[in-house]
Amino acid sequence: MPLNPNASIEITGFRWVPDFAQGLVRDLRARWALEEAGLDYRVRLFDQQRPPEYLLEQPFDQVPCFSDGEVRIFETGAIVQYIGEKSEALLPRDKQGRYRAIQWTYAALNSVEPAIFNVLAVDFFYPEEEWAKLRRPGAVEFAKLKLKRVSDWLGDKQWLEGDRFTIGDLIMVTSLRFLRHTDIVGEFPNLAAFLKRGESRPAFQQALADQLAVYAENQPQPEPEGAAA
Amino acid sequence: MPLNPNASIEITGFRWVPDFAQGLVRDLRARWALEEAGLDYRVRLFDQQRPPEYLLEQPFDQVPCFSDGEVRIFETGAIVQYIGEKSEALLPRDKQGRYRAIQWTYAALNSVEPAIFNVLAVDFFYPEEEWAKLRRPGAVEFAKLKLKRVSDWLGDKQWLEGDRFTIGDLIMVTSLRFLRHTDIVGEFPNLAAFLKRGESRPAFQQALADQLAVYAENQPQPEPEGAAA
Repeated sequence: MPLNPNASIEITGFRWVPDFAQGLVRDLRARWALEEAGLDYRVRLFDQQRPPEYLLEQPFDQVPCFSDGEVRIFETGAIVQYIGEKSEALLPRDKQGRYRAIQWTYAALNSVEPAIFNVLAVDFFYPEEEWAKLRRPGAVEFAKLKLKRVSDWLGDKQWLEGDRFTIGDLIMVTSLRFLRHTDIVGEFPNLAAFLKRGESRPAFQQALADQLAVYAENQPQPEPEGAAA
Repeated sequence: MPLNPNASIEITGFRWVPDFAQGLVRDLRARWALEEAGLDYRVRLFDQQRPPEYLLEQPFDQVPCFSDGEVRIFETGAIVQYIGEKSEALLPRDKQGRYRAIQWTYAALNSVEPAIFNVLAVDFFYPEEEWAKLRRPGAVEFAKLKLKRVSDWLGDKQWLEGDRFTIGDLIMVTSLRFLRHTDIVGEFPNLAAFLKRGESRPAFQQALADQLAVYAENQPQPEPEGAAA
């Protein structure tokens, strides 16, 4: 059971986030990788308002950070790569296999996710803005182009580089999940199946359950009836 | 002299690109890293229209790809990391130093560059679109927020992790360069100095000169006068 309050590995996460973000916050990537690797970890939780000194750990004021007594790092790409170093289950040991996996983490984070995130931004952060309404069709079209590229590459392979799941698949699956409020991934059946394959892994299921359990525990209580009047 | 037609390392690049893109195309990152590492390389050039089979090498139809007989990879983050493995000049050997440097490549590519690229897209790809005109102030503001985060982190350090240049600085400098048509970086004097420090490195200067020389050599000839009539 990787969640362990006495573990030497610590990641940071949020105590609670609104529904639309639950299951999408990026500490899920670290949790998933740690589950796949079978490494115990604990979580340091923050409110939405982090203390100013958190910027000394995470300059972009986001979660997760990672530390294990040997390294202190942020950015999920680097974190899952570091966890992959500790577990062949996530990162092949031969040079080509290793760098193909690493390459797909960068591809997901730089060639695919920004296009996905522009759709997310329009839908969740600026839905009432005039530019967002005008921009949405083009943003969706551009995201589809990127997904088509991944879908064409994937073909009928199980994972991005064949039969073996790696950190590249882990990051790609979690990037695709940012579109869960749309039917865009569903337009690419092999990609939808890839996403489902990733989400069906026991390690993913455990990571997601553990992230959601924290939010359920810290769910803000509704005001008593009439209190706002 | 790293450019060498008989080198075992090969990267891909474009034969020619329009002025606004010259000096920004991403093979510059690979060239720069190879210069810093002192590794010979050759360049396989493509027209803007790549043959369909290029997608089997680079699923997103972009440059550069990298091969050296041991690995074939794409994504500049993975490529500079792989080159870093071969040269301590780019990637420290201790675990913490190594992963801090790797972390900054992901930070540049996922936490900073997408915000920068949204400004670039508005200015170069959709300048006449109504949404782009309405979006620009917000896109600039968001890019500035990201730059402020990097600027605050950098403080009066020479490079992102102190006195030592790494692949993290290399990627961050080349991401910041995408804003060269604006005065946004200039609003953060320490970041502007960081950018200039990066661009002043002899390895960068050589890489840039070699990229631009290819475009100059393949500059399309203007139609003879009257030919279009």
